Amino acid sequence: MTDHDAVDVIRTKRDGGALSADQIDWVINAYTRGGVAEEQMAALAMAIVLRGMTEAEVARWTRAMIASGERMDFSSLTRPTVDKHSTGGVGDKITLPLAPLVAVFDVAVPQLSGRGLGHTGGTLDKLEAIPGWRAALSNDEMLAQLEGVGAVICQAGSGLAPADRKLYALRDVTGTVESIPLIASSIMSKKIAEGTGALVLDVKVGSGAFMDELEQARQLARTMVTLGTEAGVRTTALLTDMSTPLGLTAGNALEVRESVEVLAGGGPADVVELTLALARDMLDAAGRTDADPAAALADGRAMDVWRAMIAAQDGDPDAPLPVAQHTEQLLAPADGVVVQLDARAVGVAAWRLGAGRARKEDPVQAAAGVELHAKPGALVRAGEPLMTLHTDTPERFAHAMAALDGAVELAPDEDRPAGGGIVLERVGV
Amino acid sequence: MTDHDAVDVIRTKRDGGALSADQIDWVINAYTRGGVAEEQMAALAMAIVLRGMTEAEVARWTRAMIASGERMDFSSLTRPTVDKHSTGGVGDKITLPLAPLVAVFDVAVPQLSGRGLGHTGGTLDKLEAIPGWRAALSNDEMLAQLEGVGAVICQAGSGLAPADRKLYALRDVTGTVESIPLIASSIMSKKIAEGTGALVLDVKVGSGAFMDELEQARQLARTMVTLGTEAGVRTTALLTDMSTPLGLTAGNALEVRESVEVLAGGGPADVVELTLALARDMLDAAGRTDADPAAALADGRAMDVWRAMIAAQDGDPDAPLPVAQHTEQLLAPADGVVVQLDARAVGVAAWRLGAGRARKEDPVQAAAGVELHAKPGALVRAGEPLMTLHTDTPERFAHAMAALDGAVELAPDEDRPAGGGIVLERVGV
Repeated sequence: MTDHDAVDVIRTKRDGGALSADQIDWVINAYTRGGVAEEQMAALAMAIVLRGMTEAEVARWTRAMIASGERMDFSSLTRPTVDKHSTGGVGDKITLPLAPLVAVFDVAVPQLSGRGLGHTGGTLDKLEAIPGWRAALSNDEMLAQLEGVGAVICQAGSGLAPADRKLYALRDVTGTVESIPLIASSIMSKKIAEGTGALVLDVKVGSGAFMDELEQARQLARTMVTLGTEAGVRTTALLTDMSTPLGLTAGNALEVRESVEVLAGGGPADVVELTLALARDMLDAAGRTDADPAAALADGRAMDVWRAMIAAQDGDPDAPLPVAQHTEQLLAPADGVVVQLDARAVGVAAWRLGAGRARKEDPVQAAAGVELHAKPGALVRAGEPLMTLHTDTPERFAHAMAALDGAVELAPDEDRPAGGGIVLERVGV
Repeated sequence: MTDHDAVDVIRTKRDGGALSADQIDWVINAYTRGGVAEEQMAALAMAIVLRGMTEAEVARWTRAMIASGERMDFSSLTRPTVDKHSTGGVGDKITLPLAPLVAVFDVAVPQLSGRGLGHTGGTLDKLEAIPGWRAALSNDEMLAQLEGVGAVICQAGSGLAPADRKLYALRDVTGTVESIPLIASSIMSKKIAEGTGALVLDVKVGSGAFMDELEQARQLARTMVTLGTEAGVRTTALLTDMSTPLGLTAGNALEVRESVEVLAGGGPADVVELTLALARDMLDAAGRTDADPAAALADGRAMDVWRAMIAAQDGDPDAPLPVAQHTEQLLAPADGVVVQLDARAVGVAAWRLGAGRARKEDPVQAAAGVELHAKPGALVRAGEPLMTLHTDTPERFAHAMAALDGAVELAPDEDRPAGGGIVLERVGV
């Protein structure tokens, strides 16, 4: 790796050129070590947002971010490893039932997760609603739990792809989040560094997701599948609908409760459908083609792994979940069929109620969130509750209600929408 | 001015929108005070480079930069004020003979100048080759000299457009210099804040200038003329050729010597031509339409003002100028006519010999530089000197000579180029 000048690298991309492998290696390494300043990386990131990157550039950028830190090694496990990553959406609690469900079939599921920022929730925030549960595990604890229980959901260590950690924080404050090359390389650098053998991506499309257009989401999925495959990780992706919230809850304890319902063989149809679709792809990727995940939900095997997984991280699976001190209802203004229920609006309302955070260092309320009583397709009568808002800080109701203004669209019964499936497309190599 | 979010402002420009007046006022003010971080301004600057700005945006951006600092006031002077600004080129010493020449006609010429960075020289660096001369004047000293002598060339105070000062340093390290809206607003915010009544712009075109295409330079000139006019400054611009160095010297003391030759009624034809063209436009703008600047060069009146101007700033106009300890010659490799002599190459060679600096804090050598013996159109014989290189540090010769590789193009006599004038176009309102 030869020495480069940061301004030359920036200019190359600014003027629409492709960065050389050597330029990419240099700039990521120098940025991680402080030799390229934050303002220089910000200018480069904006140039990437507006000029794009070739497939070869994205692959090298990802590789350089992986090389900035350590890699995990699951080769000592007797089980095959398979991981799932979701690009994030409102009410997306799928990891909670999915990880123990897949682990039923003697597969190791290492889910290194994050916290929420903005209107989408974080998996660790959700599990922390369970009394006693802890997110931080040592590598040894993680490996032992993967071998013994099969499923682990825990905090990603700071040693994986430190360049991505730094760049992600920078992109967040410089308006450079929305870029397929930067999103794809950020996700895949962490997943590849994590050392999983297979990976199933859940790429969300719709108002509640980062990408609200199918073509963009498809391109993101393809870019990530290519990156994973080239790095030796068996990778597939599902494009799934995020125009309306997933399930009937958005909020930490509320989503844990719904996940436990799914593990008990019940739960909302869309959550069950997506959990099973992802489980099948993960089990296929792990070579468990004969596995029947629906049966494992019905007969309690998935619930057994869930209880073991929570207990292994000092959580009490039998403890009552926190309940909000205050609730308020949003009522249907007229008779009609729900034709639209906007995911982003519900996400913002849950966030404002205290379920999410505005800054990394903010705390979250375990019990806050939104409970839905009617999803698209449902017939409601004037005055019936459409949603219940939960919070411990009732002064937040007004601001949360404001986010829901216009979020629910009602129509006469004859306009009842056709219920499409949640999985829109599958993207493989 | 309402409060804005930096990321929203960045996103507006990133997505191709126009910033509102309020967004611009807020972002410039917050950046000057540290409320918008360097990395955020870097991302915004890159978005501006790639997305551009409307005329209204550039005008507001300029106004906001002026408002970030103090404004000077020349209204107490009995003479009209007129200023000249050049976008910078190799061998551009025009300010030195021009300011005293225009002041002959009872006009005040306040030339707030800078130092050189990279391959173009700085006016203050040139004058500092004169023993005793000092660049820093108080406002009172400056006003007294403008009233008494008429001409002042001095350092711009740090109070003028501090937002521009900060932004300029940032653009330099983030690859965001090359943008007409950012260049125009940077130059014009300082010139308008300086309080001159009229302004003549010398916009350079060619390899030795920032802009090497005529259409770009024309657009820059138009943008600046519009900005000045709208701010109440009578502004015109000349587009002038910078494909080959101006005059026969590039380097600090060398250029002072050549300027004194012009003031003595001699000097290279192109320097005299451009000095007179700019003087005429400045005198017109100041209402001195009958003035005859050529006569003032011929009869010694311009020289008298020069001597008074140098002496007023503690310089000794009679002191010998520094001479380099070492010289080396570049010889013509064959007989022929010089058809091209690349300005940028000569500028880089002079810089490498010690005439310029790589970083703001570096010193410059007063005597270093390049002396040309043949300009385009001249017939040379094999073995005759094309240039003499001057430096106090002879270890720099090799690196400087390398910059000149290919800089001079010779052709058979019959290919002698037609000698075009140095002024390419005039841009007015």
